[in-house]
Amino acid sequence: MRTLITDIGELTTHTAAGVLRDAAVLIEGDRIAWLGAASDAPTGDGDLVVVDAAGRAVIPGFIDSHSHIVFAGDRAAEFEARMAGGTYAAGGIRSTVAATRAAEEHELRRRLRGFIDEMRAQGTTTVEVKSGYGLDVATEERSVRLAAEVTDEVTFLGAHVVPAEYAEDPDGYVDLVIGPMLDACAPYARWIDVFCETGAFTVEQSRRVLEAGIARGLLPRIHAAQLGSGDGVRMAVALGAASVDHGTYLADEDIAALAESDTVLTLLPGVEFSTRQPYPDARRLIDAGVTVALACDTNPGSSFTSSMPFCIAVAVREMGMTPREALWAATAGGAAALRRDDIGRVDVGMRADLILLAAPSHVHLSYRPGVPLIAGVWKDGVTV
Amino acid sequence: MRTLITDIGELTTHTAAGVLRDAAVLIEGDRIAWLGAASDAPTGDGDLVVVDAAGRAVIPGFIDSHSHIVFAGDRAAEFEARMAGGTYAAGGIRSTVAATRAAEEHELRRRLRGFIDEMRAQGTTTVEVKSGYGLDVATEERSVRLAAEVTDEVTFLGAHVVPAEYAEDPDGYVDLVIGPMLDACAPYARWIDVFCETGAFTVEQSRRVLEAGIARGLLPRIHAAQLGSGDGVRMAVALGAASVDHGTYLADEDIAALAESDTVLTLLPGVEFSTRQPYPDARRLIDAGVTVALACDTNPGSSFTSSMPFCIAVAVREMGMTPREALWAATAGGAAALRRDDIGRVDVGMRADLILLAAPSHVHLSYRPGVPLIAGVWKDGVTV
Ligand SMILES: [Zn+2]
Ligand SMILES: [Zn+2]
Repeated sequence: MRTLITDIGELTTHTAAGVLRDAAVLIEGDRIAWLGAASDAPTGDGDLVVVDAAGRAVIPGFIDSHSHIVFAGDRAAEFEARMAGGTYAAGGIRSTVAATRAAEEHELRRRLRGFIDEMRAQGTTTVEVKSGYGLDVATEERSVRLAAEVTDEVTFLGAHVVPAEYAEDPDGYVDLVIGPMLDACAPYARWIDVFCETGAFTVEQSRRVLEAGIARGLLPRIHAAQLGSGDGVRMAVALGAASVDHGTYLADEDIAALAESDTVLTLLPGVEFSTRQPYPDARRLIDAGVTVALACDTNPGSSFTSSMPFCIAVAVREMGMTPREALWAATAGGAAALRRDDIGRVDVGMRADLILLAAPSHVHLSYRPGVPLIAGVWKDGVTV
Repeated sequence: MRTLITDIGELTTHTAAGVLRDAAVLIEGDRIAWLGAASDAPTGDGDLVVVDAAGRAVIPGFIDSHSHIVFAGDRAAEFEARMAGGTYAAGGIRSTVAATRAAEEHELRRRLRGFIDEMRAQGTTTVEVKSGYGLDVATEERSVRLAAEVTDEVTFLGAHVVPAEYAEDPDGYVDLVIGPMLDACAPYARWIDVFCETGAFTVEQSRRVLEAGIARGLLPRIHAAQLGSGDGVRMAVALGAASVDHGTYLADEDIAALAESDTVLTLLPGVEFSTRQPYPDARRLIDAGVTVALACDTNPGSSFTSSMPFCIAVAVREMGMTPREALWAATAGGAAALRRDDIGRVDVGMRADLILLAAPSHVHLSYRPGVPLIAGVWKDGVTV
């Protein structure tokens, strides 16, 4: 199977080639086989499918490195109450935990696949999926097992919040997470994650979780500095975390530690939009040399968007990113946050994960907020 | 042609019937013929198309009462520069005027129809379309004539900005607008509009424009209080304007005048989002008794979104509207702003302009920002 996308008005590569005009891309199987000037493109023969971009823009597929989409239940009423003046309370997670524990497996699978389809239609070609609404061994195992059906980027987040039954014994819950729960979940997961925040897990508890995961061959990432500052960011950087996610409240020494490391800072603008919390300052991070990614954090409590274009638009409006920086963060930045070198750029040998925009430029992703601009998606060379 | 939409989980009527659960709607021709409990719905016979909503929500079609979509040219670079720190300058309109004057008629028509298709796919079943990028008799005539091909809600906005060739003689331009230009445009238009603002037209000039339009049988509406306060709002209310649009800078006496009148205040959250200007306070307006509408203001300068769901989400996040108030404003509010009593509600005899959402509740329009949630659209009873 060979596909030639030609007459591309603006091709964003995220390589030294930069942005190409009047370009073409050749897909062979699941990989990019060639790119260059449309006038130099291979001519058609019997097996070549030719797609005319008609001057529109092509960009790498979006890489959404942070989602919580294995869950049941509905929290629209909680959202409505918050918009009427309430504040975001992490305890709302517990209602989703109850519904997720009670759900039939086929129902969880149906909903999960619905979110994956919804994301693909919006241009997301790689998505990380976390557990974390089970908080018992059986439901966490079920969550990572279902996630592994739909993505290679599965994250075990047993340490999402302390469940009600361990409210008086959080350290006992950490023992469960790093003991039997990790035993059950590690075979399905690539990543270990923890919600390091007041009201969730302390820095020391978080360190125990990440170190136990690392000892089992999982790679660390962390939720930190969403609601306040602390030592969690530097602890995660010291452990070699691929990404610190949220990062609203960062001290100068946190930013310095991130800038000197391979750890990405993943911003989640949907959260601030949907909770009315202050937006992190991406400008400050980028100017300090931090690698920044953008992700949706799709979850029923704090951010129920699954739209990477929406997150790009909000990052440009509210976080001081340029349209090009935001696009980089939503593609190559996501690849860095997942330690992937086969996606996020358009180059020979990379996976053929591409988006054809219904627009002449990537700028339109923030210039035309909310408008469905995804005219075509290829994932591993196949149209979605 | 009869269509029954049944198993509706949440039917928003905007009538005394309120919100119906487990409901159904019967469409006959271009009108709603019946609505009620799904269990009471007419049973199928040969000519009845049955659509299973499967528990999802149905709402009235969106009514976008403010758009500027007859234009040529591209201003993405201007947007990019503004996001990098520039400020919105109304003078940017002039680059669109030059491109629109130079464009072939078939190119203007192709672009206009592209926007209409894009809006329909996002659930907008009625859209108002303004002229205003011609600013000479021939191009304004062409603009309203093309607009009349796609909508009944055509607005003559020759008084959008003073063109460069009249920079030294703005009153002379007003003479042109209310003379030969109005003669040429009135046959195609229902509405007369003016941009009453420092840098555009004074209150006295605006009054001349509106009064001339009224004398020709056009109905008045106005752009006012976007960039500063003044007497424009009360002038328009006194003339019986159907709507004052923008309304960021309203004095208490403006709000009192609006509340005591039939004039709607139309908020355009895409403008504030895309220009980083302060958001108007919808809460204050609604609490004072003002009728509020929401519209996109689709235009290449200050707001290039065409997504009513996006505007709803921003209005809830930033303007203090509840999800239900925002939905009302985007449907029944738009109908009021266009003085239409055949759209904006779901009732027997109303036009069958309906949206099936890919969600159980209208709340998801703001709970899931940016996500394409339009699962089906009927315009005059026909699926789009
Ligand atoms: Zn998260
Ligand atoms: Zn306008």
